[in-house]
Amino acid sequence: MNRGNCRKEEDWLAYLDNSATTETDPAVISVMADVMKKIYGNPSSLHGIGVKAERLMEQARKVVADALSCLPHEIVFTSGGTEANNMVIRGVAEAYHHRGNHMITSPIEHPSVYHVFQYLKQKGWKITELPVDSSGRVNPADVETALTDETVLVSVMHVNNEVGTIQPVEEIGNRLKKYPKVMFHVDAVQSFGKIPLHPSRSHIDFLTISGHKLHGPKGIGCLYKRKNLTLPSLLLGGGQERGLRSGTENLPAIAGLAKAVLLAKEAEETFYQKYQTWKEMILTRIENELTGVKINGDIDDGGAPYILNLSFPGLKSEVIVHALEKEQVYVSSKSACSSKKEEPSRVLKAMGLTDQEALGSIRISMGRMNVEEDIKQCCDVLVRTIPALQKVMKVHKR
Amino acid sequence: MNRGNCRKEEDWLAYLDNSATTETDPAVISVMADVMKKIYGNPSSLHGIGVKAERLMEQARKVVADALSCLPHEIVFTSGGTEANNMVIRGVAEAYHHRGNHMITSPIEHPSVYHVFQYLKQKGWKITELPVDSSGRVNPADVETALTDETVLVSVMHVNNEVGTIQPVEEIGNRLKKYPKVMFHVDAVQSFGKIPLHPSRSHIDFLTISGHKLHGPKGIGCLYKRKNLTLPSLLLGGGQERGLRSGTENLPAIAGLAKAVLLAKEAEETFYQKYQTWKEMILTRIENELTGVKINGDIDDGGAPYILNLSFPGLKSEVIVHALEKEQVYVSSKSACSSKKEEPSRVLKAMGLTDQEALGSIRISMGRMNVEEDIKQCCDVLVRTIPALQKVMKVHKR
Repeated sequence: MNRGNCRKEEDWLAYLDNSATTETDPAVISVMADVMKKIYGNPSSLHGIGVKAERLMEQARKVVADALSCLPHEIVFTSGGTEANNMVIRGVAEAYHHRGNHMITSPIEHPSVYHVFQYLKQKGWKITELPVDSSGRVNPADVETALTDETVLVSVMHVNNEVGTIQPVEEIGNRLKKYPKVMFHVDAVQSFGKIPLHPSRSHIDFLTISGHKLHGPKGIGCLYKRKNLTLPSLLLGGGQERGLRSGTENLPAIAGLAKAVLLAKEAEETFYQKYQTWKEMILTRIENELTGVKINGDIDDGGAPYILNLSFPGLKSEVIVHALEKEQVYVSSKSACSSKKEEPSRVLKAMGLTDQEALGSIRISMGRMNVEEDIKQCCDVLVRTIPALQKVMKVHKR
Repeated sequence: MNRGNCRKEEDWLAYLDNSATTETDPAVISVMADVMKKIYGNPSSLHGIGVKAERLMEQARKVVADALSCLPHEIVFTSGGTEANNMVIRGVAEAYHHRGNHMITSPIEHPSVYHVFQYLKQKGWKITELPVDSSGRVNPADVETALTDETVLVSVMHVNNEVGTIQPVEEIGNRLKKYPKVMFHVDAVQSFGKIPLHPSRSHIDFLTISGHKLHGPKGIGCLYKRKNLTLPSLLLGGGQERGLRSGTENLPAIAGLAKAVLLAKEAEETFYQKYQTWKEMILTRIENELTGVKINGDIDDGGAPYILNLSFPGLKSEVIVHALEKEQVYVSSKSACSSKKEEPSRVLKAMGLTDQEALGSIRISMGRMNVEEDIKQCCDVLVRTIPALQKVMKVHKR
């Protein structure tokens, strides 16, 4: 319903594409505008205007560190999740090549992980892609089996961006404890602020966060890097972020990220329950009122409740997205990054879906600006629109 | 005087550290807040909210392209100048290694250029550092002399960030026309919006811009990349920016950058004249009222009028910066990036300054929020403070 943005009633819409990006929280916008007006200095400057900026930056770093129960200097601010993911995987490849040339990942990672592994493969690295089950889940035992003397990194995401599957990253971390030379990276972009995860407790060495997925600013993210681990800088220059990430710090966005983290953490439990109720509401309506639908991902034992992926075999994702949009319901075909590509989702294919199932999938993803009315509207529109499309397309219903 | 930020009179200060970073223009803040509120979609999303975001992004791209008289698709948005510089130099090294292993640069480049060359040197690249004269200027003939069959890239900045020297990049570009296999990169972070430069006319292949140096947002910059030139992506992932720079586009900052570019272009000529007057004003006061001062950089024939670097041999930069700060005048010791490092400026050393001269230097840098009163205040404070410091430090005056 987008109350936060005070839209007029006639502008009402149900934005359910929060895994692509979220509306920036008005309180975050206000913090950013304030910082831009009042604390414009360069944190590296010697004088008081610089010092003021540096202090605010360190306060923000502490907020993020507290949310991850880690030390402030384990937080490195980056331009977003993509940069943090690239920095870890390329960085480990560069710094630890002498230890071995093998890395382990899953086939359902975000493109900013997946494509870096593809790149390393071309450079001669051995990359093991673990199998996933039909719900998209990696088996932690498989991780251990795949380890070789050459393994330097395991990278498995926390919550999948297309289907919401929660990976057993704690269990993977615990198993990897026995192998101190193997580092563990978790892309937590789709879970941070919604599902708690503490890197140090779970033996995670690197963890990625993005601001704009949690009603924070775009263009900011951060990397948790366990202390004492070496990682070369992807961006060389002025030596900011303790030499790990050069470039004048984006203080307004850093402060905005800290605000977004505080707000997300405050609302974490309440909204987790809301998302569960809403997901249940959608599933009930779909099961009772639609046919020819397949629910993708891990529903039984705890997929993320804020992401719901549905397939309508025989229909095309884009057609469904545009039909719903006409009724002011905004969902996505697969992930935003690959929305404009015609091929079936790599993630759904890895989970064993047929091309037809994958090509007819949509993702409904909720956020903190949503209200129950959005979900009801989405359900009403789905049960009205889908049968009409199925009729036109002469879809055989089960 | 910071009128833009509507400070109260008692908060008056003369911010003259605009080469480190600038105050964000209130109109830019307003654009950014508006975009965050109203156009929050992901430009990659298929639906209307995404399309609206994409359209705004392309409008912004056109604004930047127009300012450089280039094509919109020659503009790649990045997280800032550092990323753009890294992307070019590392990218050329990766993509054109088969052509040769030699690059040419100057010893007075920004750290985000200089350190990438240092990195490549470690990787086996041959890097020629051209000499500079006492004003920090590269001789275009030297560039041509340094070329070998192995040369793939020449990188020379437009305006030096510490001393304001304007490099003869047009002439270098014209000489390089004869060598179509040699690419030419110009870091224009300190000149864009203040001194016109058109990459295509000057045979420049890559040009770097940063938002926060021109009263625009932090965390945004862009790279001009001449069409048809191949450059690998430094950040892999969703394939945004035509595959050149992955990561969800920072639309509020992109729109803010476009606004900043428009404002800078409008004011370019007027302010160039103001800066000239102000620089002259400072130089006259210094020459008439101070002794033991050395003016660094290219004053006679057209150093950038908005940067003025002064040495006070026998004094320490930090001491001067803090003494001026007590009187509400904010200048810097060398560049912000290296402010906290104790060694003498690499740039001033390359220009032939002694350690004592380099360790006692300050930089006064002006911006569009400055008013004449700031300059007067700066002069008054300088002529009052410096002799007092010189007396304490028993500096022998010329």
